[in-house]
Parts: sequence; structure tokens; C-alpha cells
Amino acid sequence: MIKVGIIGVTGYTGMELVRILLGHSGIQLTYASSRSWAGQGIGDAIPHLGDVSDLVLSSFDAADASGKAEFFFVCLPHGESMETVGLLRQAGSKVVDLSADFRLTDPAGYKQWYGTHTRTDLLREAVYGMPELYRQQILAADLVANPGCYPTSVILGLAPLLAKGIVDPGTIVIDSKSGVSGAGREPGPGFHFPETFGNFSAYNIAGQHRHTGEMEQELTKLAGTDVRITFSPHLLPVSRGILSTIYVRPALDLNDNKLLALYAEFYRGEPFVRLSGPDGVLPSLKDVRGTNLCCIGPRLDKRTETIVIVSCIDNLVKGASGQAVQNMNLMMGLPETTGIEQTALHP
Amino acid sequence: MIKVGIIGVTGYTGMELVRILLGHSGIQLTYASSRSWAGQGIGDAIPHLGDVSDLVLSSFDAADASGKAEFFFVCLPHGESMETVGLLRQAGSKVVDLSADFRLTDPAGYKQWYGTHTRTDLLREAVYGMPELYRQQILAADLVANPGCYPTSVILGLAPLLAKGIVDPGTIVIDSKSGVSGAGREPGPGFHFPETFGNFSAYNIAGQHRHTGEMEQELTKLAGTDVRITFSPHLLPVSRGILSTIYVRPALDLNDNKLLALYAEFYRGEPFVRLSGPDGVLPSLKDVRGTNLCCIGPRLDKRTETIVIVSCIDNLVKGASGQAVQNMNLMMGLPETTGIEQTALHP
Amino acid sequence: MIKVGIIGVTGYTGMELVRILLGHSGIQLTYASSRSWAGQGIGDAIPHLGDVSDLVLSSFDAADASGKAEFFFVCLPHGESMETVGLLRQAGSKVVDLSADFRLTDPAGYKQWYGTHTRTDLLREAVYGMPELYRQQILAADLVANPGCYPTSVILGLAPLLAKGIVDPGTIVIDSKSGVSGAGREPGPGFHFPETFGNFSAYNIAGQHRHTGEMEQELTKLAGTDVRITFSPHLLPVSRGILSTIYVRPALDLNDNKLLALYAEFYRGEPFVRLSGPDGVLPSLKDVRGTNLCCIGPRLDKRTETIVIVSCIDNLVKGASGQAVQNMNLMMGLPETTGIEQTALHP
Amino acid sequence: MIKVGIIGVTGYTGMELVRILLGHSGIQLTYASSRSWAGQGIGDAIPHLGDVSDLVLSSFDAADASGKAEFFFVCLPHGESMETVGLLRQAGSKVVDLSADFRLTDPAGYKQWYGTHTRTDLLREAVYGMPELYRQQILAADLVANPGCYPTSVILGLAPLLAKGIVDPGTIVIDSKSGVSGAGREPGPGFHFPETFGNFSAYNIAGQHRHTGEMEQELTKLAGTDVRITFSPHLLPVSRGILSTIYVRPALDLNDNKLLALYAEFYRGEPFVRLSGPDGVLPSLKDVRGTNLCCIGPRLDKRTETIVIVSCIDNLVKGASGQAVQNMNLMMGLPETTGIEQTALHP
Repeated sequence: MIKVGIIGVTGYTGMELVRILLGHSGIQLTYASSRSWAGQGIGDAIPHLGDVSDLVLSSFDAADASGKAEFFFVCLPHGESMETVGLLRQAGSKVVDLSADFRLTDPAGYKQWYGTHTRTDLLREAVYGMPELYRQQILAADLVANPGCYPTSVILGLAPLLAKGIVDPGTIVIDSKSGVSGAGREPGPGFHFPETFGNFSAYNIAGQHRHTGEMEQELTKLAGTDVRITFSPHLLPVSRGILSTIYVRPALDLNDNKLLALYAEFYRGEPFVRLSGPDGVLPSLKDVRGTNLCCIGPRLDKRTETIVIVSCIDNLVKGASGQAVQNMNLMMGLPETTGIEQTALHP
Repeated sequence: MIKVGIIGVTGYTGMELVRILLGHSGIQLTYASSRSWAGQGIGDAIPHLGDVSDLVLSSFDAADASGKAEFFFVCLPHGESMETVGLLRQAGSKVVDLSADFRLTDPAGYKQWYGTHTRTDLLREAVYGMPELYRQQILAADLVANPGCYPTSVILGLAPLLAKGIVDPGTIVIDSKSGVSGAGREPGPGFHFPETFGNFSAYNIAGQHRHTGEMEQELTKLAGTDVRITFSPHLLPVSRGILSTIYVRPALDLNDNKLLALYAEFYRGEPFVRLSGPDGVLPSLKDVRGTNLCCIGPRLDKRTETIVIVSCIDNLVKGASGQAVQNMNLMMGLPETTGIEQTALHP
Repeated sequence: MIKVGIIGVTGYTGMELVRILLGHSGIQLTYASSRSWAGQGIGDAIPHLGDVSDLVLSSFDAADASGKAEFFFVCLPHGESMETVGLLRQAGSKVVDLSADFRLTDPAGYKQWYGTHTRTDLLREAVYGMPELYRQQILAADLVANPGCYPTSVILGLAPLLAKGIVDPGTIVIDSKSGVSGAGREPGPGFHFPETFGNFSAYNIAGQHRHTGEMEQELTKLAGTDVRITFSPHLLPVSRGILSTIYVRPALDLNDNKLLALYAEFYRGEPFVRLSGPDGVLPSLKDVRGTNLCCIGPRLDKRTETIVIVSCIDNLVKGASGQAVQNMNLMMGLPETTGIEQTALHP
Repeated sequence: MIKVGIIGVTGYTGMELVRILLGHSGIQLTYASSRSWAGQGIGDAIPHLGDVSDLVLSSFDAADASGKAEFFFVCLPHGESMETVGLLRQAGSKVVDLSADFRLTDPAGYKQWYGTHTRTDLLREAVYGMPELYRQQILAADLVANPGCYPTSVILGLAPLLAKGIVDPGTIVIDSKSGVSGAGREPGPGFHFPETFGNFSAYNIAGQHRHTGEMEQELTKLAGTDVRITFSPHLLPVSRGILSTIYVRPALDLNDNKLLALYAEFYRGEPFVRLSGPDGVLPSLKDVRGTNLCCIGPRLDKRTETIVIVSCIDNLVKGASGQAVQNMNLMMGLPETTGIEQTALHP
């Protein structure tokens, strides 16, 4: 049994890790920290857990933590996470960091979107934790930067097209819609129930959203040429789920079946990517709720010669904690799908 | 007092007309028909009305109807509507038709998207009922084709740019999200509450949606050149509201303030268009719920030289029955805003 | 035109007053105050209003306020409200107070549920603002205490039975369910969207909720004998609406038709009470959304000799701002229904 | 590996069984039938399953079914279920029936609430499948009648009080609220999304709901004396979950701690009952979503000498398919909690 710890357990990604790890047969959750809830039971901080675990939350201390677990998930806000990750790495622990701190390989990019990076020494060892693209590197990694939620839906939705070089990288429009849990557990006027219920809104459009840098980095790597995206996030009045609708122009002659074949080949054998072709139903949030799946439906609009891709994930699972566990499984030599094989909770 | 009738009152657009007309100071609702509810009280067919009106629903008969009212809203399915409109016009009544039957000026276009048109003789007299574009024609019209819900949000969102010729008409991407009332009052598996609640889905993407033809017709007229759009409708798990996010490339040098000024000039004095500029909050569904407003927020993404426009309406008001009343007001010489001046119901 | 002011306009009851008053033909909104937004436009504080009014919000000052308006709605938290009301009354203005400060006639009762009352001198002149019970007093009142939201649904649901003395006052169980706007506009963990969406919970059960005292006071007056209630409030995952299900034992032989007749007689001519009898559909939230109605469906369970009453209101309209306007209309000699005659916004 | 079949797999309880059984380590799903989808893949009938299973759906035939599986869940409508259960029992298979057909031990009771029973011969062998009350009988049973959803929340909420004889059985009021999936997968006007979203309604109150008979039968057995209940079901605008608020008068002197102790003793060691006492948070739907838990919070209202019990379940899990699997585990000698140990999916 691998002993596992969570740093910052009382946010939504921490809570979701607890949900997944309590059903994971290969590990034991032996440590969890929280600034505000240190000294109290995990069920006090996360009431819906009830008495399912008697773990007492700690105030984070690297030595203490490293004594109690060998693998860590760090669920702190960006900016705070990097120092904690550094301490855990110094103590020899393997880490998946769920913040943005190690996603951007270039400190200048980090500065542009987030602020000054103070642990650039660790940037080289950090691997971008998207197993469909970087499985070999993750298997050997000690530090994995878990991808952002929007980027997971978008990069997986576009990877086959960019990797094969069959689209025009200068024309990518990404229209994403996310459930409110993506904004975190902290209440605020924009997420107050009566304000959000029955509402729908766009925010941070026209190049304002921080995930833009992360997406462009990865899409550029895939395309082998500079990629710029027009990215519009929207707030969907549901708790969970991201659906991204992606628009791109093909650089060669295509049809729906060729398009599907191309995706099928690229994702052959992938346990968590599910494709829907022209004869199937387009993916929607209900297909992924509570699962680690990314469901992708690519279609060609022949009238306008545009490829439209619908890509869905549960933002808290494949978009955060589930993908983090997938990364841990790889890093620790466990079967990749352990603990994250649930079927969607629908209805 | 103008005597007004509604043909097909028990669908959502009919119900919404009743809501608006009961508060309208210039008219009297003297007639309403329904195939299934003929002979029963309007409050039996539409229970939430209670005993607010003692109108008894009729089985439609053109002579009977024309005897009881002088102006009609026709709320029948496309294909059925055209014959009824024809009978009412023969009887000399003015009509706003809320179906798609008279929106496409070219019968070939109608055939492509809907089927064979059997009253092409009326197509010439029908005016497309978007007062912001065709107010003068509506003032003189006897038959107005009320615009579709998606088209209303999209055409108003794009009109200033296309009319001024400052965008590249070959690159328009439209990502629209609609509340479920847009699908009508008829139950079906795709609108069954447990299937839709907490879900979000795309449908009829890649050139499949019938409103595509209507939008391209009007956008082409505005641009003075052939316009093709990539249109993706989505089903939003709320009852009311459409938010369209529109992407287009500028053909000249712009900035956010120039963009806003251009919209402000185009819509100067319009009672139902509200703009939000770079210093304001982007419009969202809560701004328009229960109102006849179209709220538009245009923004320039300088990183990618793309204009992103967010355009919001209540699909049942400005997207259907409210705009229909606005058209009636114009056609009957009433002040344009009578009966449709409500403030948004929020929260 | 009567000049009207709102003290504390930026909470949900203030916002709802603005919505109603902007469509009210007999008054003009000439003053509105807000501690946090003083000096800014009303559309800045309440963004969905847009530019519909150019009123600038004031920092409250009694002299200033009284110079600008002759009638006031006070929308402050309980405890704060009483002093402000006192100042406005001293300045000679008529007031509807939407807080709990003047609802309890006995200062000891106020102390038990809220705290010390510092303006007991005004308690005698305050009239409990439920027109169906106290219309004559309200017509003559200078200060009206607007009823609480839960109490409105419950007292109207029970009044005919208690007034006629045909129920056992010792056995009343009240199970109420309220939309989240009842908790106000201030964000908090319990009203954070992801916590509330898809959830349903009871709170303050077993005699903890402050509205208990207000309900017992009024029910006791109606019954002419001491009434105690078991009251359970619940948080419903919707924005608006209260539905109370009330259980009481009849003290004499009844049937469904007698029961309905009794309610019909009690509420004869009431513009805002709508009854549904055994042949009708039970009232639900959709019947009252955006309206000043209280919809009541009383039924007899013959198996257990229990009367079950379903009573519905929009908590922000009949449960707060709509009833406040109804009271103002009475106090100022306007037709009672002016400005609050809207049909329900459904769907 | 035990081979398991599902009869009528395409309704919500069948779908939920599939979700649970796909993660169950002790069984294999080898058979599933559906009238409408026979011959097609399970993923065609239940699209969100995707390609997770290659099971092809059968048209039900008892011999065929019995050859392919040894244990069956029957998910047919009441009235239809009894004959199918009879055929499976004749073929020697063990069965959990999720319909109402074998819940009522008295055919006269069945006739009163449902219709004529045609397999009364099987009524004697059927055990009411609530393990907390009938575990020993279930261990030995060949046919288990799985409890209804409302009854599960209500009976577990009341059992300790009635079994100990410390309440007045003549005064029980039950106010239950259920998510819409309880109404099944068949669309209808009352469950059409725009009708239900943001709405809340009571239905079948005053002794009309069929579950009344089932509850009274079990409560009577527990109390050892005739119990009659006033039961009011409500439709909650969420997909999943039941919360019942139950009112009963104590027959002896109690306080909150004694009350909790009594429940704790009654449910000692029960894996799926979770209690919350006066120092805890009342249970709500988010505590049980996707789990087999019944969360119960009993409280004493000292003002009115009334016990108020809040009892929550996921209607599709503990209220249907999860409890069915719990019963199967017992009947087949598997650990009782196998496959149903999930933590709540929250948010």
C-alpha cells in the first residue's frame, strides 16, 4: 500500500481527491493538510464525508508530511504551491501539483499570466501531466504538473489535428463552458446561488484568461509551429463539467469519416478518451459526470470548410483530481486506471 | 382598443404573448384558438393563468376569427402556419407570423431548410420583423415574419459590423446557447428533466440547424456580399434565454472604443438594444430575463485580431413574443415600446 | 405623482422594489440610498438595470431623504431598521418597513427572537401589513410592518381555518420550502452555487427559526386562543418562491368542497389570493413567479382526518416587495393593485 | 463470479444497476433484457455508457435468461413484474424485484393501491428487502421485494421510534421531497424541463400516493399497532435524492441526546445508516448523492413536544438499485457492502 498525502485538502480538488482515493485499491490516504482546519477531523472540514475516515488534518510541515506519506498531491493556489512543492521534492517525495505553477515551461510565460516564479529550478524536472501526450515522461517523473481544466478539454480535442499538421493553426476559436465548481470553494458575489441559477455568462474573453498561455504552449508543441487561440470561457449554471466547442480550418481535403479515423488512430488504446463519430450522439456533460473520461466528437461543416470539435470532461475528474490520480498511478507503477474507472453518474 | 387574436395559444410563444398582452394598455385580447383545447377556458389550457381571463378558446375558423379581432399573432408550427396566415390575410387582417414560414424570401431557400412553400404569393408582402433593421417597412406592413430566436441574437450582434463593411464575411463563427423553452412545450426524451438538468450539450452543429438559412439571408443583405456562417447551437439547462458568442475578423484596424462607438452609432435611439463596452460587465441572461432587450458586448481580442461579440436575449421575448408585440405596435400605430417595457426579473 | 424613496436599495428586496416601481404608474422613484454604493448610479449597483434609470444613490440622511420623497420603503437588516424608521417618521414621512423590527407587537417577543428593541414608542402605531387581514388599519396607517416571507405564505394559508375556529390549534405542523433569494444578496458558504445546486436541505428546524414568533402572534390573534406551531424551513435550489405545506386537524366534520367554500368566502374579492379546489391543480411556484399572488390549495385527507394546505408565493413579491407596494398603494390612496398586476413569468 | 441479469435495463433503476454492477468485484453482468432495445448493444440504449460493455440486450425469455445468469434484478413496472418474477422463480433463479408487486403482503392491500395480484402464491416467500429490519430473512430469501424510494427514507427515519414504542402512532405527518428521476425515464408534460426547472410542487397529497400502503404496513409491523400516516410527496427540481421531514409526538419525556442515543443503539453497526445529532449538521441531498447511505437527523422541538426527523437518501441508490445490490450481496453470500461503498459525488 502506497502512503499518499494531500496538501490543501479542503478545496474542491482536494475533496475530489479524497472521494477518488477512498475507493482506490492501491493506496492509503495517510496524510492531509489544511491551514484552516488543522487539528480537526477530515469529516469536520468536509461534512458530506461523515465518519468515513478518521484522518485528522495537519498544519503543513514538510518533515512531518514526508514522514507520513511518500507521494503527495498539492492542491494549493498558484503562487503558493511552488514553494511547498519544492520542500516536498527536497524531502524526496514524488509530487503531482494541481496548481498552475509548473505547467508553463518558460518563466517568462509564467510571469505574463501569473507572476514571478520563485522555483524555476524545478521547472526542468516538471512533466506536463497529460498521459495521452506524455505517458513515457510521466512514468519516469518525480514532479508532474497536472493540466488545467479548460486546457485538458481543449488540448485533447485538438491534439490529433495539430499533431498531423492538417489544420491551419492560425484560425483556432475555442468556446468553452464550465460548471461553477471550476471557480473553487470560496464564496463570492459571482457564484452566489441566486445570481448564477438560471443565468449564463461569458467572462475573461478576448485573451484575458490565464489558461490561454498553457493551451498555446501545448498546442504549439503539438503543431510544431506557433499557435494562437481565441479563447472564450463561459460560466455554466451547473456544478460540474466542461464542454468546449472548438473551431478550426482544415488544411487538406477531409470528410467526417476520415476525421473520425484520424482521431481513432491517434487515441488507439487510450483508456480515458471516448470518440463519437458522425453516426453517434455528440458528447455532453452527462456522459462524463464523475468519470475520468474525455469524450470527443469531431465533425466537418462542409458548407464552410470548418472542423467543429465538441470535447467534454468532468472538470474535477479528468480536469483535475482524476487526471492527478492517473498521473500518480503511472508514477508509482500502478495500473493506470486504478480507482478512476467509474461509470458516469447519470441522471 | 385594438382587438387582437392569437392562433395557437397553448405553445410557449402563445403563452408568452398572453402574459405580455394582458399587461398591454393599447389592446384587448378578444380571440385565441387552440386545436386541442377548443371550447375550454384559457386558464384550463394554461393553468398558471388561473382565472385572470375568461376567454374561451376557439377552434380556428378564419371568418369567426376575423369577426372577433382585427390583428393576429400566428403561433403555429412552420409548414402549418402559411395557410392560416393566408386565410387571415384574405379576410383583411394584419398578421405577425411567429413561425419560419415567411422569413425566407426565396422559396428555394425555404425548400432547402423546411419544405415546399405553398403560399409563395404572400412572400413579397411579408416584411422581416426586426425593427432595428426594417422599421420603416414594418410600419407599412400587413404581414410581418417574426424573426427566429437564434437569428435575433446573432443578427443584432453582427449588424453594425456587416453594415459598415469592416469585417471579413468569410470567417464568421457563431456559438449559441439556448434555454430549453426554445424547443417548445412538447415533451420528449431530450427535454425530460432528469436528462437535461445539470447537463449541457451541442446539437445540429456543422451546418444542420434550420436557422442557418435565415441568418445567412439577413447577414448577406447587411454585408452586401455573400455571407456564410459556422453555427453551433447548444442546449443550456435553463428555461429561458439565449447567449450567442460570435467570432469575426476585422478588415481594418480597430480597438475596443472604436468598436463600441460603431455599435453605439448604429443603435442610437433603439429602445431595446443595450450595449456594454470595455469598462462594463459583459451581458448575461439575467440582464434580459422577461424583457424585450438585446444586450450586446463587443470586444476586440488584440492577440488574435478577432472581434468577439456576446449577444443576449430572452428567447421568448425579444426572440419571439416580445418582438412580435413590438412589430404589432409599429403596424398598428401604437408607441413601439407599449407593453414590453418590463425590467428584468432577477434574481 | 407620489415621490417615493428606498432605503437600502441594493439588497434583493430593494432591487425587487425598483423592478416593480419602475413599472408603477402612480409614483416616481426619486430617492434611493445605499451605504456601499452612495454616489454611484443605481445601474452601477444593480447592473442588470443598465441605464434604465439615472438615479444616483445617496448616503442616508433623514433630512435629505425627506426633502426628496414623501413615502419610504426601508430595506435594512432587522435591528438597524428601527432607528432609520424612527427618523423618517419624525420627519413626517410614511413608511413601509420590510425588516422584522415592527412586526412583533410585544417587545418581549422581539427580545426573544431578535434582540433589544430601541424604538418601542413606535410599536403602537405600526400596523402588520397583510391587507387580507388588516386592510382598514393599513388605509389609515403611517407605519406598516411588512410581513415576513414565510409568515405570508403560512398565515394566508391558515387564516380562514383559524378565524372560523374549526381546527385544533394545538396540532399545526408547517413544512416550508424557500428559494435561496430569501437568504439575501450576501454570499456565504451555504449559498455558494456548487453547494446549493442539486441540493436540498432543512435548517433551523425544531423551533429555531425567527419567523416562528411572528407566525404564532398572528395565528393566535386569528384563533383567539394561544397557537403554537412546529415550523420547519427548507432551502430549495431555486432563486425565487416559497411553498408551504401545512397540516392541521379539523375540529368538526368537513369535506373538500366545504373546505374550499370556507376559503372562498373568507377571501372573496381579494385581488391577490387564488384558490384551487379538489378539481383543480395544486398550486406550485410557477404559478406565482414574479407575481403578487398567494395561491392556496386546501385538501382534506379523509384517511387521517387531517387538512393539508399548500400555499405558494413569490418570496420577493407577495413575500416582500410586492406586498410592500400593495401596502403603499393603500396608505397613499392609490388603487390597491397598481403596479403589481403582472402575470406569472412561466416558463 | 456470480452471473447476474437485469430484466428491463433501460429505465432509470436498470441504468443505475448497470452503473453499480460494472464496479462490483463479485459479479459479472451477463444478461440484460429490454423490450424496445432487444438486439442492440447496451451502449445504444444507454448512450452515456459508451462502449464500456459489449453486452447485447435480449428480448426476455425465462429459459434463455436462466441459462445466462443465476441471479436477477427485475426492473419492470408494477403489474408486469409479478409474472416475470414467477417465471424466473420457477426456473430456480433468485430474484430481487424492484417493482411494488411483492412489497405488500396482503393481496387486498395490493388491490387497493395497485390492482389485482395474479401471483399471490409467491407473496409468502417474498421478503421485504430492507436489511436494517430484515437482514436474517434476506440472507435466506430467494425472492426479495425491494422497498420503494419514499418508504426507504421514511421507514428508516421512523423505525427506532416505533420499535421502541415511544411515540404516538396516531400523529405521524410525513412531508417528502423527491428528485424527478423518481418519476422514471418516460417523458411527460409534468417532467418537461421548462415546466419543472425552477418550480416546486406537491402532488398526490391527502392520501393519494401508492407508497402510503407500503409505509403503513411496515410502520404498523414496527409499532405492533395500527399506524396511519399523512403523507405529502413533492417534486423537487433536481435529478436525484429524497429528503423526508417527519413529524411525530413522543409518548414519553425525551431530549435531543436521548433521542440520538436511541437511534444510535438501533442502528449500531449498520454500514449504510449515518446519524447526525444536535451538534452536527442536518443531513441534505449532497451527503447521499451516488451513495447507498440513509442519513438521518432526529431533533426534538421542545416548544411543541414534537420530534422532527430529517431523513435523506439517493432515490436511485438506497431508494432502489443500491439497496437491491445490498440485498443481492446478502442473498448470494457476498460481503454486504460490495460495490456500494462510494463516497458522495459532491459538488
